[in-house]
Amino acid sequence: MLNVIRADKDGISATDRGIAYGDGLFETIRMRGRQAVLRSFHLDRMVTDAARLGIPCDRDELDAAITRAGTDYEAAFEGGDWVLKLVLTRGRGGRGYRLPENCQPCLIVSVSAMPPLPAGTGVVAGFSQFPLTVNPQLAGIKSLNRLEQVMASREFTGQEFELIMRDTAGNLVEGTRTNLFFRRDEEWLTPPAGNLAVAGVLRKYLIACLREKGHQILEQTIPPSILSSADLPVLYLVNSVVGVVPVRSLGGVDLPVGGGLETICDPLQTLE
Amino acid sequence: MLNVIRADKDGISATDRGIAYGDGLFETIRMRGRQAVLRSFHLDRMVTDAARLGIPCDRDELDAAITRAGTDYEAAFEGGDWVLKLVLTRGRGGRGYRLPENCQPCLIVSVSAMPPLPAGTGVVAGFSQFPLTVNPQLAGIKSLNRLEQVMASREFTGQEFELIMRDTAGNLVEGTRTNLFFRRDEEWLTPPAGNLAVAGVLRKYLIACLREKGHQILEQTIPPSILSSADLPVLYLVNSVVGVVPVRSLGGVDLPVGGGLETICDPLQTLE
Repeated sequence: MLNVIRADKDGISATDRGIAYGDGLFETIRMRGRQAVLRSFHLDRMVTDAARLGIPCDRDELDAAITRAGTDYEAAFEGGDWVLKLVLTRGRGGRGYRLPENCQPCLIVSVSAMPPLPAGTGVVAGFSQFPLTVNPQLAGIKSLNRLEQVMASREFTGQEFELIMRDTAGNLVEGTRTNLFFRRDEEWLTPPAGNLAVAGVLRKYLIACLREKGHQILEQTIPPSILSSADLPVLYLVNSVVGVVPVRSLGGVDLPVGGGLETICDPLQTLE
Repeated sequence: MLNVIRADKDGISATDRGIAYGDGLFETIRMRGRQAVLRSFHLDRMVTDAARLGIPCDRDELDAAITRAGTDYEAAFEGGDWVLKLVLTRGRGGRGYRLPENCQPCLIVSVSAMPPLPAGTGVVAGFSQFPLTVNPQLAGIKSLNRLEQVMASREFTGQEFELIMRDTAGNLVEGTRTNLFFRRDEEWLTPPAGNLAVAGVLRKYLIACLREKGHQILEQTIPPSILSSADLPVLYLVNSVVGVVPVRSLGGVDLPVGGGLETICDPLQTLE
């Protein structure tokens, strides 16, 4: 049974393992009125990744929390779009990494306004100098261990919509808050889930949707040389709140725009 | 100005960045009555590592928090030994990794009884199967991003005092909650700070103390072959709460005991 906390009303215990060790995970969901975009993808990911961390998590309880939040907060956003964040922690614990015998997970529900959406003509992105390291056993989990993204975000100068993070070999892995989709000729490329800090739900939806529509998409490592080839790729940044965002300039390199991803697969079709 | 929270009395805001991203760091201090072991080492590390993370942190305020905790909790432990934990977070923030314009850091003060100390005749240690990955820019920081240690700690069977974590190349790096000191002949070895998830304060004290007493100590990578050589090393696990703990068996390999570290350098001499 989840201990549900509304962040606008309640605090949490200072002994929660979420704060002690980042022992938990989160989802950030785009809402429209009472409905959620990519609802089943968010539920699937949180249930799957909670299981990887050994945190008890019932899908129906999570689903009920989304429904409840829709009811509670729809009016505050006048039926328009808003953002729901669910943080699931392992709950309270004593000192020390070992799990308490009986943990009661805590679900923190918080809401915020939609961020401004960028123009469809393309955004400017840069590179973070902060290297990204991914533990293979934790790859893809949207856990509460996010210091790398916090540190990379300190490098924003105000000019960039996003900063791309690279692994220690210089390969392009992901943005601080987005996944990457490249298009070159008729082929789509995205880094493999096993190399990612966060494997986004929109990424998963897009891979399935592109395949269903007959596109070829490869999950493979993206070397820095992709930006020095004569045949520059189209690049999209994607996450479940801002959607699919074309990039017109990356690290000072002008990129072609017009890969069509915005119209090929529209996550707003998944409202439920 | 720190927002000081006593974990036995107060909760924290559910929007604190400590819980959202593990955006903070902590110290675990052995206390005796009102005094702290390795007090200046703990203060130095928290101030230095907070600066690495860009979290404002005044040494005098931290020092005052230790003094205040000593006054508040000494009686509860009848003048004996106890454990003081200080968690420093960046404070509240909105949604998103970027830092809020004005953050007010939060210091959570919590206390617990001393854990049972192991017999001086040596403990049994094993290996964790969970790989340790260290971001070079975050190396050594006792941050709130500790999922790797939590996951490794799930492997304890009840037989081991500690589980040793290895990097993806198999090198021995550190325990889930301890640093490693090896002695072979007249030479001491410990993995370099730049490879560590947590560079402990007792580790720092011991390196300085051993050097001051004329011992040779090298900070170098420890390959797995150290356990298959004919000349097996003495091994100690060290942290600032349990002190210096000899290991008599590691992963089924019997190790010699009697390196003398317990008496060469005694951190209890640093009480202040």
